[in-house]
Amino acid sequence: MFPKLERKKVFRDPLYGYIYVTEAVISDLIDTKEFQRLRRIRQLSGVSMVFHGAEHSRFSHSLGVYSLALNVLEEVDILKQKLSEYEQIVYLASALLHDVGHGPYSHAFEHVFKVRHEKSTALIITGNTEIHEVLNRYDAHLAADIASVILKTGKFPIIEQLISSQLDVDRMDYLERDAFHTGAAYGRLDKDRIIRMLTIVDNQVVFKEGAVHAIENYLMSRYHMYWQVYYHPVARSYEVMLESIYKRILDLIKSHQLDDEYADYLKIIIENGFEENAYFELDDYYVNGLIKRFSHCDDLILSELCNEFLKRKLFKYISVNTNQEQIFKDIIDRNHLTAYEYKIDYISQATYLVDEFDIAVSKILILSKDGELKTLDQISPIIRGLSTSGIKSDQKLYYRDKTHA
Amino acid sequence: MFPKLERKKVFRDPLYGYIYVTEAVISDLIDTKEFQRLRRIRQLSGVSMVFHGAEHSRFSHSLGVYSLALNVLEEVDILKQKLSEYEQIVYLASALLHDVGHGPYSHAFEHVFKVRHEKSTALIITGNTEIHEVLNRYDAHLAADIASVILKTGKFPIIEQLISSQLDVDRMDYLERDAFHTGAAYGRLDKDRIIRMLTIVDNQVVFKEGAVHAIENYLMSRYHMYWQVYYHPVARSYEVMLESIYKRILDLIKSHQLDDEYADYLKIIIENGFEENAYFELDDYYVNGLIKRFSHCDDLILSELCNEFLKRKLFKYISVNTNQEQIFKDIIDRNHLTAYEYKIDYISQATYLVDEFDIAVSKILILSKDGELKTLDQISPIIRGLSTSGIKSDQKLYYRDKTHA
Amino acid sequence: MFPKLERKKVFRDPLYGYIYVTEAVISDLIDTKEFQRLRRIRQLSGVSMVFHGAEHSRFSHSLGVYSLALNVLEEVDILKQKLSEYEQIVYLASALLHDVGHGPYSHAFEHVFKVRHEKSTALIITGNTEIHEVLNRYDAHLAADIASVILKTGKFPIIEQLISSQLDVDRMDYLERDAFHTGAAYGRLDKDRIIRMLTIVDNQVVFKEGAVHAIENYLMSRYHMYWQVYYHPVARSYEVMLESIYKRILDLIKSHQLDDEYADYLKIIIENGFEENAYFELDDYYVNGLIKRFSHCDDLILSELCNEFLKRKLFKYISVNTNQEQIFKDIIDRNHLTAYEYKIDYISQATYLVDEFDIAVSKILILSKDGELKTLDQISPIIRGLSTSGIKSDQKLYYRDKTHA
Amino acid sequence: MFPKLERKKVFRDPLYGYIYVTEAVISDLIDTKEFQRLRRIRQLSGVSMVFHGAEHSRFSHSLGVYSLALNVLEEVDILKQKLSEYEQIVYLASALLHDVGHGPYSHAFEHVFKVRHEKSTALIITGNTEIHEVLNRYDAHLAADIASVILKTGKFPIIEQLISSQLDVDRMDYLERDAFHTGAAYGRLDKDRIIRMLTIVDNQVVFKEGAVHAIENYLMSRYHMYWQVYYHPVARSYEVMLESIYKRILDLIKSHQLDDEYADYLKIIIENGFEENAYFELDDYYVNGLIKRFSHCDDLILSELCNEFLKRKLFKYISVNTNQEQIFKDIIDRNHLTAYEYKIDYISQATYLVDEFDIAVSKILILSKDGELKTLDQISPIIRGLSTSGIKSDQKLYYRDKTHA
Repeated sequence: MFPKLERKKVFRDPLYGYIYVTEAVISDLIDTKEFQRLRRIRQLSGVSMVFHGAEHSRFSHSLGVYSLALNVLEEVDILKQKLSEYEQIVYLASALLHDVGHGPYSHAFEHVFKVRHEKSTALIITGNTEIHEVLNRYDAHLAADIASVILKTGKFPIIEQLISSQLDVDRMDYLERDAFHTGAAYGRLDKDRIIRMLTIVDNQVVFKEGAVHAIENYLMSRYHMYWQVYYHPVARSYEVMLESIYKRILDLIKSHQLDDEYADYLKIIIENGFEENAYFELDDYYVNGLIKRFSHCDDLILSELCNEFLKRKLFKYISVNTNQEQIFKDIIDRNHLTAYEYKIDYISQATYLVDEFDIAVSKILILSKDGELKTLDQISPIIRGLSTSGIKSDQKLYYRDKTHA
Repeated sequence: MFPKLERKKVFRDPLYGYIYVTEAVISDLIDTKEFQRLRRIRQLSGVSMVFHGAEHSRFSHSLGVYSLALNVLEEVDILKQKLSEYEQIVYLASALLHDVGHGPYSHAFEHVFKVRHEKSTALIITGNTEIHEVLNRYDAHLAADIASVILKTGKFPIIEQLISSQLDVDRMDYLERDAFHTGAAYGRLDKDRIIRMLTIVDNQVVFKEGAVHAIENYLMSRYHMYWQVYYHPVARSYEVMLESIYKRILDLIKSHQLDDEYADYLKIIIENGFEENAYFELDDYYVNGLIKRFSHCDDLILSELCNEFLKRKLFKYISVNTNQEQIFKDIIDRNHLTAYEYKIDYISQATYLVDEFDIAVSKILILSKDGELKTLDQISPIIRGLSTSGIKSDQKLYYRDKTHA
Repeated sequence: MFPKLERKKVFRDPLYGYIYVTEAVISDLIDTKEFQRLRRIRQLSGVSMVFHGAEHSRFSHSLGVYSLALNVLEEVDILKQKLSEYEQIVYLASALLHDVGHGPYSHAFEHVFKVRHEKSTALIITGNTEIHEVLNRYDAHLAADIASVILKTGKFPIIEQLISSQLDVDRMDYLERDAFHTGAAYGRLDKDRIIRMLTIVDNQVVFKEGAVHAIENYLMSRYHMYWQVYYHPVARSYEVMLESIYKRILDLIKSHQLDDEYADYLKIIIENGFEENAYFELDDYYVNGLIKRFSHCDDLILSELCNEFLKRKLFKYISVNTNQEQIFKDIIDRNHLTAYEYKIDYISQATYLVDEFDIAVSKILILSKDGELKTLDQISPIIRGLSTSGIKSDQKLYYRDKTHA
Repeated sequence: MFPKLERKKVFRDPLYGYIYVTEAVISDLIDTKEFQRLRRIRQLSGVSMVFHGAEHSRFSHSLGVYSLALNVLEEVDILKQKLSEYEQIVYLASALLHDVGHGPYSHAFEHVFKVRHEKSTALIITGNTEIHEVLNRYDAHLAADIASVILKTGKFPIIEQLISSQLDVDRMDYLERDAFHTGAAYGRLDKDRIIRMLTIVDNQVVFKEGAVHAIENYLMSRYHMYWQVYYHPVARSYEVMLESIYKRILDLIKSHQLDDEYADYLKIIIENGFEENAYFELDDYYVNGLIKRFSHCDDLILSELCNEFLKRKLFKYISVNTNQEQIFKDIIDRNHLTAYEYKIDYISQATYLVDEFDIAVSKILILSKDGELKTLDQISPIIRGLSTSGIKSDQKLYYRDKTHA
């Protein structure tokens, strides 16, 4: 039996009103330094430079995902039958902790330092950390089992799908939360209905047919949030520059040309891979401090990148169709761009969207009124239309425009 | 010069905060008895039986459309150049008055009594009414010109498109207002963006490319509002019964079998077509009084329909695919249903949706970044997907289930 | 044991998202004709003439009160201990039914016909009605016990306080619902907090100290809703005219001067007091039909009142301080006003506010952190300030202005 | 003539939908590094530790204040007459820039380092900064005049009152914005009404009587936001600890015991007073870096404070009435608390509230219907009640609890 808090804890949330915590283990996890670190990492990195309201942290989002997970557990009777008390704790803790492995400006960070946040999350959960200590205090298997959910080993298939699939508590929280803070007109979901229609068939999370409109709406909101917010070219440019800065630091450290104690935490990650104490220090404050510091450093490439980043002289961008790559080459040649000064960014079928619409959507399973399991695209002409007609794609060159420099 | 009010009038609106009136003519029109009659006609007829919050009237909606029209005029600079002061008044008054010709439970009413609300609206504007009187007081041509906008004669092409097209102030108001009152999760539009992107090219209302996502979202919201709210089968059943009641009254009056002074106003409309004074009396209160009264009348068919309507013993319904019409026939035969006791209801390509998606959507014109005019479906793969893949359609038989009677 | 519905019923609500019904008896009560009648009575009578969005019915409000009552039951653990299963049903049904006895334009109706809506509600619950029939089907004592709650006999003190006191589920619903539909900026309550802080001490509903700010805010919202919305002079004028119409009808019927079959239902109420079948017919549709009809009647006083009401030639009003009653008399004399043509309307310490602030507020009991029971005004300097400094009051004369007639 | 932007700039805002910039000077000011620095200072310092959603920056708030200021200018016709084009720019720029002088964790910062943010703001506007440069480019007097508004020299009385008084664009923005992000139920203002009722009489900003309810509501919202959010004891404890950290750093620097290059920027401020370049570096990132760093430093007092701050071992607190100061002394003695380890925090008539309610409220001027100028408390019994009955006050001791250490 997992102990309850004597008095339930309440967090005031701008989206959900109140978030409740009754399990002692959840409360203790929230209080760990690794979870508190998420307060210092903005959820949307560069997007907040375009949408000034989007200054919320991964801490807020993580609490929100936990809250939705609890909500699902309370609303869906069949879940309480399918999941043992132990599994319910695995589920709630996984929801809470799913993002603890994120680095600062996470996408660029992962890309350059070859760190997958799922893996870092699992390592924090099972490593030499306060989180691990808390989990052990309650049950010796808990840390390993939560890590297995994060890594999707298949041990807890229902929990894995609830936490991470085409339609999960993670995505439902971030779409609404990001829409709320950016002020985007889209992103309001009919979560109540989606959750009420959720059920389990053959160890699979499926949705009753009554949820189809709500799911169509969810997918469209997601589509619009990607194109209006997450893929906003100015936000992308910001991230591309960060990637260049990260890359230059990486190369300098590897070639022993950067000797600044302040960069030690990054050095440890680069040289040894994941290390708990170093990782703990990596947050937005650290990276922003680094950029300020390196704007005065000796390496010209790095100092210029940092300077322009600080002054928001972002990389320029142009859209070019896939068959016009010569245009890209010309710009690169004309500007004498080094590898740190441009990036070709495909936002297309190779990235989120096919993933999400072509392949993945077929994976959302609908329990039709006549009792059959169907894929969403079999039921919904809208989604079928989206899958067959091809999805908007885009290819942009982001580059340092030296003509103005 | 049209005179301004000495002090602008303000209406508190649950959606828009405040609605402002500065033109004396608009204020006087709102005060006419024909416009005030709209307070007594619910915007959504039978839908309020399913969504209890949807009790708002056509009066609220009409004020809202006027308010949006004013908003467009204030935000879109080119409009103030393209429309003379006189035309601006034609535009605002058309927005305000566009629904004055609606009857109670309008769709059933139109269908049975062969009255088109646009035509009734025009007749009220130009007939022996307070509205006509007000308009004449300001300008002798005003009534005829507003009627021409309502009837889409082509005299004021820009105004006609602003008031009634695929994406107009009427639809923008009702989608949001109906969503607000029903509590539907969909229906929030990015009106600000759509309006800011609206412009005029060659006397056509077009939208700059920056509006594409907002328009996609608008069309999806519309789609979902239709399927979740307007086409809700219980709401449809309610309307189908009303249609039967109207039909029976019509047939009884035509065959001189209904002799009740209380039905006189309907009788006038049936026998003489539109007549101002009779039409004025037709509102939800009148029709509901009629139904209560006729629940005690001698005609068995009518009294039974009215009784069951009042007790909400609605027609049953079943969905059947287009090629299974034999099933319909069987139900009709087995129950010995008269023409008043069933209706085959196609909600399909023959009604709103093709209209709105296949044909009509191509009519939304987009001014692309390179200055070309394109149709929305040329620009948007989502809309293209919707057009080519076919749209959800549905066919239902609504029928009186005598097996329980 | 009260039976549950096989499948819980869900109502989409614009304020609460979804309203759930799981008890069969509640579902059956909603389906009775007496409860459905509430769809035809607007919650705010004349207020909708000023705030056009406020067109919602007592049906919506009654569902809302039931929903809040359920919410309280689910959130407040001590209630589930204090109330037996039977009492829980008494409580939920009382919340649902508390307004079924309201007449059309209820305040004027009560005032003229000397009918108290609580008494009518009790008579409908225990009389020859579908509601009574439903209740009897579940338990022979239910109707009498619910009526006793409505009449506040003291048999179920906790339930009585939850349903009707200074801070009850009725008021919490109507303040927020009326604010939502009018578009008033006030009226958003921190219901979640108030409900979480509610507890029972010595058979009394009290609130833990953590609720004090939320309750202060609730009282201020109530204050502002009264002055901005419920007491709006144009809305009052509308109600005063209705009162005059009701009064004239009453006097004509009593003196046998009104002979119109259409008024029979009112006649029954006047002559016999409450009678189920007649009462059932009294709704907004009926009264509006009556007014239209009597605008053509022979009695000059009645026809003029009805005519002006329909044309919204409302009574004028002036504010006068309490010691200037001579001014009132002068206006009445100068215009030769009959008793039907004016009303002196005190909105002052004699009405809602002292009631609510001076006396009543002291009745909201707070369980302080140190375990003592105190009255709200002992704890809150704001409320104390409100009580001691006197409350805004107002006295207006509403009168028919014959100088323009 | 101040030049307009060729194409107006639009910022998506979660509260206001869109924020528009049409003036080139405003756009250029937003792009300066000093204004961009505000992105790195959270609006609510320690409050975000209690209300996790409150992670918004002073950048968001400053844009919001500018937007409201613009709104006032557009809605209040008399302002456009009273203010010359030049003064309108002074007004808008003052609104935008009013907070640029805030330091990180501003209240503690000001208190310890004896820096008033208004003064720093003026120094940034007139100093060696990009902001000054931008202003000079447009008009040589602009910087001095904006600084005079910030310092309230009385040169532009109307502008000063609009920007900073009992009811100004600054407060209206932060109350709503902070409520939005914290999720507080209070804080929604009827800004539209307040702004519409604003007018100018004798060079004073006054409000027409129709605004009284909206202003009462504003003052109550402010009161509740203070007690529920700004004065939340956990947030206060966080700030008290920061104050101690700042104080210890100050004392160490003054006594030359702190020798860390990283603290140089603070050193400059301490030794020389305001200095542009050093001030620019002071932001949340810097201070958080400092705290992390000093958690390993040699000074035991500082390292312990920093450590406990990072681990959120906040100072404990107890409330004690004014005449029980002996209790405070006992706790201080028993724990052997140094000056860095406790603070007696009066939240009472000595701070915001008398200021705001007793004295200040009388300064909100109301233009009554009969044309007289009155103070708000003369008109509003509620406000009078608040002023006379005394205001809730509170005194707490915050202290390091060594019994657990």
